[in-house]
Amino acid sequence: MKKAEVAILGASGYTGAELVRLLVTHPGMRIAALSADRKAGMSMGEVFPHLGHLDLPPLQRVEDIDFSGIELVFVALPHGTTQEVIAALPRHVKIVDLSADFRLRDPEDYARWYGHPHLAPELQKEAVYGLPEFYREQLRACRLAAGTGCFVATGLLPLVPLLEAGVIAREDIVIDAKTGITGAGRGASERKLFSEVTEGVDAYNIARHRHTAEFDQELSRAAGAPVRVTFTPHLLPMNRGILATIYVKGDAREIHRVLDERHRPEPFVHVLPLGAEAPQTRHVRGSNLCRIGVTADRIEGRAIIVSVLDNLVKGASGQAVQAANLMLGLPETTGLEAAPLFP
Amino acid sequence: MKKAEVAILGASGYTGAELVRLLVTHPGMRIAALSADRKAGMSMGEVFPHLGHLDLPPLQRVEDIDFSGIELVFVALPHGTTQEVIAALPRHVKIVDLSADFRLRDPEDYARWYGHPHLAPELQKEAVYGLPEFYREQLRACRLAAGTGCFVATGLLPLVPLLEAGVIAREDIVIDAKTGITGAGRGASERKLFSEVTEGVDAYNIARHRHTAEFDQELSRAAGAPVRVTFTPHLLPMNRGILATIYVKGDAREIHRVLDERHRPEPFVHVLPLGAEAPQTRHVRGSNLCRIGVTADRIEGRAIIVSVLDNLVKGASGQAVQAANLMLGLPETTGLEAAPLFP
Amino acid sequence: MKKAEVAILGASGYTGAELVRLLVTHPGMRIAALSADRKAGMSMGEVFPHLGHLDLPPLQRVEDIDFSGIELVFVALPHGTTQEVIAALPRHVKIVDLSADFRLRDPEDYARWYGHPHLAPELQKEAVYGLPEFYREQLRACRLAAGTGCFVATGLLPLVPLLEAGVIAREDIVIDAKTGITGAGRGASERKLFSEVTEGVDAYNIARHRHTAEFDQELSRAAGAPVRVTFTPHLLPMNRGILATIYVKGDAREIHRVLDERHRPEPFVHVLPLGAEAPQTRHVRGSNLCRIGVTADRIEGRAIIVSVLDNLVKGASGQAVQAANLMLGLPETTGLEAAPLFP
Amino acid sequence: MKKAEVAILGASGYTGAELVRLLVTHPGMRIAALSADRKAGMSMGEVFPHLGHLDLPPLQRVEDIDFSGIELVFVALPHGTTQEVIAALPRHVKIVDLSADFRLRDPEDYARWYGHPHLAPELQKEAVYGLPEFYREQLRACRLAAGTGCFVATGLLPLVPLLEAGVIAREDIVIDAKTGITGAGRGASERKLFSEVTEGVDAYNIARHRHTAEFDQELSRAAGAPVRVTFTPHLLPMNRGILATIYVKGDAREIHRVLDERHRPEPFVHVLPLGAEAPQTRHVRGSNLCRIGVTADRIEGRAIIVSVLDNLVKGASGQAVQAANLMLGLPETTGLEAAPLFP
Repeated sequence: MKKAEVAILGASGYTGAELVRLLVTHPGMRIAALSADRKAGMSMGEVFPHLGHLDLPPLQRVEDIDFSGIELVFVALPHGTTQEVIAALPRHVKIVDLSADFRLRDPEDYARWYGHPHLAPELQKEAVYGLPEFYREQLRACRLAAGTGCFVATGLLPLVPLLEAGVIAREDIVIDAKTGITGAGRGASERKLFSEVTEGVDAYNIARHRHTAEFDQELSRAAGAPVRVTFTPHLLPMNRGILATIYVKGDAREIHRVLDERHRPEPFVHVLPLGAEAPQTRHVRGSNLCRIGVTADRIEGRAIIVSVLDNLVKGASGQAVQAANLMLGLPETTGLEAAPLFP
Repeated sequence: MKKAEVAILGASGYTGAELVRLLVTHPGMRIAALSADRKAGMSMGEVFPHLGHLDLPPLQRVEDIDFSGIELVFVALPHGTTQEVIAALPRHVKIVDLSADFRLRDPEDYARWYGHPHLAPELQKEAVYGLPEFYREQLRACRLAAGTGCFVATGLLPLVPLLEAGVIAREDIVIDAKTGITGAGRGASERKLFSEVTEGVDAYNIARHRHTAEFDQELSRAAGAPVRVTFTPHLLPMNRGILATIYVKGDAREIHRVLDERHRPEPFVHVLPLGAEAPQTRHVRGSNLCRIGVTADRIEGRAIIVSVLDNLVKGASGQAVQAANLMLGLPETTGLEAAPLFP
Repeated sequence: MKKAEVAILGASGYTGAELVRLLVTHPGMRIAALSADRKAGMSMGEVFPHLGHLDLPPLQRVEDIDFSGIELVFVALPHGTTQEVIAALPRHVKIVDLSADFRLRDPEDYARWYGHPHLAPELQKEAVYGLPEFYREQLRACRLAAGTGCFVATGLLPLVPLLEAGVIAREDIVIDAKTGITGAGRGASERKLFSEVTEGVDAYNIARHRHTAEFDQELSRAAGAPVRVTFTPHLLPMNRGILATIYVKGDAREIHRVLDERHRPEPFVHVLPLGAEAPQTRHVRGSNLCRIGVTADRIEGRAIIVSVLDNLVKGASGQAVQAANLMLGLPETTGLEAAPLFP
Repeated sequence: MKKAEVAILGASGYTGAELVRLLVTHPGMRIAALSADRKAGMSMGEVFPHLGHLDLPPLQRVEDIDFSGIELVFVALPHGTTQEVIAALPRHVKIVDLSADFRLRDPEDYARWYGHPHLAPELQKEAVYGLPEFYREQLRACRLAAGTGCFVATGLLPLVPLLEAGVIAREDIVIDAKTGITGAGRGASERKLFSEVTEGVDAYNIARHRHTAEFDQELSRAAGAPVRVTFTPHLLPMNRGILATIYVKGDAREIHRVLDERHRPEPFVHVLPLGAEAPQTRHVRGSNLCRIGVTADRIEGRAIIVSVLDNLVKGASGQAVQAANLMLGLPETTGLEAAPLFP
């Protein structure tokens, strides 16, 4: 397999490091450049000692990267800083963006939820929402993929097929999500200290988490009518993993049948048997898998869906590699077959 | 303060040890006897080294305990074994039971959820449901208090006042509960190993957890009409704490007002300001406190309530001591004033 | 018991919050003032929600505190900032300092290990090293107590009696210490993030941790001759607790006999039987206890000593309250009798 | 690459599952059979849901496996049960044993440390100690490899070269080891419950852990003279990883030079620069790497060595695959190149 040269912008964050982890054994891509503005000049091993044994390019500033031989760029920069960086990239490079900057199709939605006008509205028009299970063909053909929010990926994989099939009520969808801390990145803050996170749980950003806008957009599209969900994220004392417990109105058997049929061909989505023991985040750690379970509530006409994935893999960097595989014409699962790390 | 002599049956489990912790500095009770059938003959320090420095009675078999001077007995035995033990206790002793054996008023409910007929239906009639916030006067007068399920205490403290006041819909109540592992006790099982619990989360007993029956009973009573909730427990990598995220239909402002008024006189229930940052389990660890927060959903007419407590204290042993204080005519907060242990 | 009025300077850190936790149920002291320079004007509940239900004085700047009625001040400020603050306190107040600023008797030692000259060398002369087990009488009479390093307390409690008795070699003492993260305080840094601490262990400041200077000082004093130890601290994914594994040359039986005799009258130091299962940090959490175990190595003439305590209690705030009890003429154990929180 | 057919005996334990994880993407081996006596008839997905998406052979009893096409067998059975199972295998299969059953060359050593006579002393004679870094050539030629103890691998990788080179004293070697819980396997016991392991640390089997015998054997061989170490294992609240802090007498610069030269050609052993920040277990998680750091003590002539690896990979299943690669004539690193999973 001839390897495509790729760059990672924002390599000093967790999703950047995870991209490196996934790409160093990827048979179809080669890391040709790494950027990290404030850590330019350092090696990846200085920033991430777990990668210290690898032969990797040094960290550079974006403007010092020679993009001439580079086919595809992963952009793992913070939300809000990405639009201008991507707008300045040469037209020959394909882009997979992991930030929130190109996820919302309507620039007014973006402005409302992110508090400032979109800085690259023209580029937004060509962006494809980056979830391969629902945008596979568009991704094969696109130049710019916008990777999804990690919570949103966890919720959409079960909910989109159900709303498309019309087997659940559009109202009364409650998404109670539990996440590990790595989704919040590596920046230092009191809130994320071990001493403040271990041995406890809390809900945060109740009724106002930004991923809500993405849910609205994609679920309304699937339903062909406006859908607004109740979404509550919780922070748990763990590194990786999101578990979404989703409360819906509909027949559990129908729900399970639709999900099972829709996802059976998917290499990374596994629907467990109806009523089976619910999936655990522990069982997808480090892998690109999403596992989904369906249980009938004791109250007639209601069901509980549990969906799990690793926020750094299927929720971010693995999803990005999957999209990149499509954009580069590689088999979709290339470099993503590793089994979960358990325990 | 003259100290009442008390016994703890089932002292070798976590709730038993927690009773000891709370009682060794309690100015109104003295531990006169401890039982643990399979560990009879051992000292508490051998079973629980953290209590090894204390001067405590040895572990005995129940039948070897001399109850003549004992005023009150805490029963911390496993579910199902308790009815016969309590039925055999001398009539002069008061009893606070921490098991599920006397929580359900209707013996048929008990048989349906626990899989065998109730073995002491006459005693059941005199049992008072052990949550002081709602059964304070009955507890002062009773002989047998039935401590609540830990999940149930977490949910009832916010939901009972709301259903009594009629400010939330009786239908569409979703209780998404997250618990630490100590609620499952000290018995060895693969499921509870560190290696199977750390760094992850899972939902279990979806739509069929036994605490559901207690919710039905107490919430229907509060509403004056049948109430059936959707209840999903989740296991988290932490020792202590339950956080219940409760989705209801009603006006958040009204909901907050009712809770704030109702619980303001309560020494152990604290309702946070409307829309404040949600309470964390970390902030009640080791204490008898329950903290409750209310947030309006972005969807009109819906609210999210977060309720937290320490399952071993307010959810079990602390609640039991609180009930015992009432039954013995002591000030209700005696021995329960310790502040939470954070971090 | 008439309550002495006390103040806590630096109440917004973990040791400050822990002092509050210990003092709110202390029958002999009342918190009359709290300081926190950068958080002046906030309530303790805003800074530490777990204390939000308590009736506490607001956080003030030190210079705004009225010390006229205050008998004793706990100083929980960062290392290096404390000398000038204490020098400026009115002479009538007694002081228990929890920082490193007055621990080293020789100002040159201080300058060498802390990188700047001592700013209050006159005060240093009256400071008493704050470990009650070895400085009880001096503490009763002193004005200024210098609380020990948390690692040092863990190591001195076993080592001082052994060096005094001459039953171990002064050379070849290796102290391999394992600590929870709270010892590093609440300041935000990448190093202390949950994601960087959980699920792993590392050694840090090998051969150059500042507590080494305290070990040198106190162990040399005990031995009556220079003692230099090899000391390596390790960071573990836990909040509270230090476990020191100490490798010494000497007869295990003699070692155990000396420790057992010396510490038998001590209310907070428990020496386990020779060869018993080693003490765990879990078994002292939240308490003022130190537990010590002794085991003979399989190599003749060598022994392994394991010493555990809770770094925030016996290693800091509990030790400080114990010293304050002595300085105020109260029974030494007042307010410190709570049993450990397990699990 | 033509794939060799392999079997895993004892696939229902953690090292068995880890072998599956490593082998499903291994280009040179194919899992042809899996055994698990008590779980025979179940699928791997039922026993380990994280492997539930893979197409794997069902679990069988050993006696039901057809070994005719199988080239190599990994034996991941409990200590003590393995000798007879291996003795009964057909002579054409090569064997990598992960238990302790063939590690000690002297059957009397085995009997002394394991409490019963060796059951296959003839086989013992042909067993090669399974650490490729020191037994590479013998492994290429052998039929039976005996994988090392996980603590022992962590200690030997630094200590063997140093004793061979004579740059450290043979006496006064102290190995203070810290391990995650997975080394203790998946069997249920109170000792290994989450509630008993989280948020704490303890030392166990002080001066009598069985791995001591392996240290004696291999270190004495390296030194050409008897070496007896002081070895203390500690249990930490983490799943994977061992960190050994090793106290030796010798010149740190010499020590570092010897290790650096010896391990520079090794693909899986990385010696950090002298005095660099010590390696962390977090930085090798899930990988076959061992990282080693050397620091001079402040006491002249002493050094502190820190060695880390993942007990389930380089300490067990990864080491076994590495040995199997050699035995099958494959490149040694095949299937083992995955980077560590961090965070």
